[in-house]
Amino acid sequence: MTSDIILLGHGSGGTLSHQLLDELIIPLLSGVPSRDQNDAAVLAPVAGRLAFTTDSYVVDPLFFPGGCIGDLAVYGTVNDLAMAGATPLALSVGLILEEGLPVAVLQRVLEAMRDAATAAGVGIVTGDTKVVPRGKADKLFINTAGIGVLEHDLSFSGSGALPGDRVLINGSIGDHGMAVLACREGLELTGDLRSDCAPLHRLVAAMRSAGGAALHVLRDPTRGGVATTLKEICLQSQVDLLLEENALPVRPATAGACALLGLDPLFVANEGKLLACVAPDAVDAVLAAMRSLPEGAESCCIGEVTATGSGRLRLRTAIGGVRAIEMLAGEQLPRIC
Amino acid sequence: MTSDIILLGHGSGGTLSHQLLDELIIPLLSGVPSRDQNDAAVLAPVAGRLAFTTDSYVVDPLFFPGGCIGDLAVYGTVNDLAMAGATPLALSVGLILEEGLPVAVLQRVLEAMRDAATAAGVGIVTGDTKVVPRGKADKLFINTAGIGVLEHDLSFSGSGALPGDRVLINGSIGDHGMAVLACREGLELTGDLRSDCAPLHRLVAAMRSAGGAALHVLRDPTRGGVATTLKEICLQSQVDLLLEENALPVRPATAGACALLGLDPLFVANEGKLLACVAPDAVDAVLAAMRSLPEGAESCCIGEVTATGSGRLRLRTAIGGVRAIEMLAGEQLPRIC
Repeated sequence: MTSDIILLGHGSGGTLSHQLLDELIIPLLSGVPSRDQNDAAVLAPVAGRLAFTTDSYVVDPLFFPGGCIGDLAVYGTVNDLAMAGATPLALSVGLILEEGLPVAVLQRVLEAMRDAATAAGVGIVTGDTKVVPRGKADKLFINTAGIGVLEHDLSFSGSGALPGDRVLINGSIGDHGMAVLACREGLELTGDLRSDCAPLHRLVAAMRSAGGAALHVLRDPTRGGVATTLKEICLQSQVDLLLEENALPVRPATAGACALLGLDPLFVANEGKLLACVAPDAVDAVLAAMRSLPEGAESCCIGEVTATGSGRLRLRTAIGGVRAIEMLAGEQLPRIC
Repeated sequence: MTSDIILLGHGSGGTLSHQLLDELIIPLLSGVPSRDQNDAAVLAPVAGRLAFTTDSYVVDPLFFPGGCIGDLAVYGTVNDLAMAGATPLALSVGLILEEGLPVAVLQRVLEAMRDAATAAGVGIVTGDTKVVPRGKADKLFINTAGIGVLEHDLSFSGSGALPGDRVLINGSIGDHGMAVLACREGLELTGDLRSDCAPLHRLVAAMRSAGGAALHVLRDPTRGGVATTLKEICLQSQVDLLLEENALPVRPATAGACALLGLDPLFVANEGKLLACVAPDAVDAVLAAMRSLPEGAESCCIGEVTATGSGRLRLRTAIGGVRAIEMLAGEQLPRIC
């Protein structure tokens, strides 16, 4: 690269654009040489239904304990595919760069994307790069879209919860949001906080093998946290759900940071967690399958679908009371993903 | 909507996010009711190879003569699929909104996306919305990704040009870029300038029926314009190509605006044009097929692949001289798409 910062010309389509692609983006993200790049990637035929999803990532700061915007952009979209029960096939990446962004920062992010894609076993097959003038974006935004294939006839939609279902989670809640927030605010407590961002499609495959059609709902509790995602499931399925506060896994560092800042970990984003509603007969088998994988080692049951109903989400508190949980109106933690 | 501007809370995942989705985005863009929305869309199995592409759109201003960022975001991605010879199946949409954006502006853009998707016959099946604080983005950025299906075994890659191929285009050049630029700068000459943005997949289908394997290369000359795209084809195919200046279709309004501003229409972006390299035997049939459709009515031949070579692009000028054309180093027109 002849410049160590991103220039407007890197988004022009001209020689600077080609240099950025040929020297940085394509070598890091693509196995296909520049000479064979076209505007669309062509993929081999696929047997099965397709899953298709997209997310944009605007996290601030770009780097935080446990990951960076690049990991998020790969794992977040892989996980949205996984929640449909799909095996991820291919990702696209759309970069919006602010003029003046250090090339070294872009390189670190792209390296993280490459490593995350390798870890998830998914290819980044097509992309696009735009540059906007200084002050018209904040450093770097990433969009990823993903295609997956469903090798089964099951559905894990948010509308599938049934009374009696147990609610499972694969580990501690609120770690991602608090790691990002503490890092952004420069809090001293960052030492013990670490984002949980991780790919979940292998965990889902294991759960599906163990639970089959008894696996009713799969959702990843990202923005809005566990509470918002469960409330969505309650409304989509028209059921009532009771959470057990004593059963909610919260790491001490995350609990401490939440207490300090007046935040409820139930509403804090996760990037390596899933929630599942599972028929009671299959719970033991599904939990055992989850615990057999590192990303599910701390899996547990945190609640139960109690009845058909109007979509009430309630929490049995540590001292035995029951309180209703509603979605937050607005923004607890902006730019967390 | 309880607010007439976008708030940070509209990106939070909470009730404001749900209100934005339920009252504006989902009714305008999706046929699927909120209750059945999940993080990934599930599509029926597809017979054939898949095409997959993405583009982000950061055009400034959002609205310009002949279209807006919403049309661009749909047609641009449809056209990238079309250039692979694919029939567009489904689009994703990722919105990045700046806090304070008027909801009415978002609504106009979403209505344009809906109308463009209807015109192109493609569904918008999955999406994501993020909000960043004031000053951290410029009003509204859109990413679209698209899936298409290839119902044939042909390839129209930029590496497929052969000596003797004629270079065809479906009409006048430089209209999109000059319409956006004139509108942005408030030039009085906007009256006659109009973006050419339009979907091209039906034109490609007609060309494929007429030309079959004689259709060697398809590319849409967007950023960097006709010159940059042809130079890319020359380099990818390792051929030399000669353009005829007298044959280049340029509207008087576009030519006038280019002359006034010192810009070369060969380097100005198009959003409803394609370039094709076609074996000479098939040129008449392909041109006739192109001219049978409104988007190809002004199709013509603008040059010829002269020889295998190192990738030289040359222009025979109106007065009979020949000059070499290289890519621009940097940015002629930022934020044109």
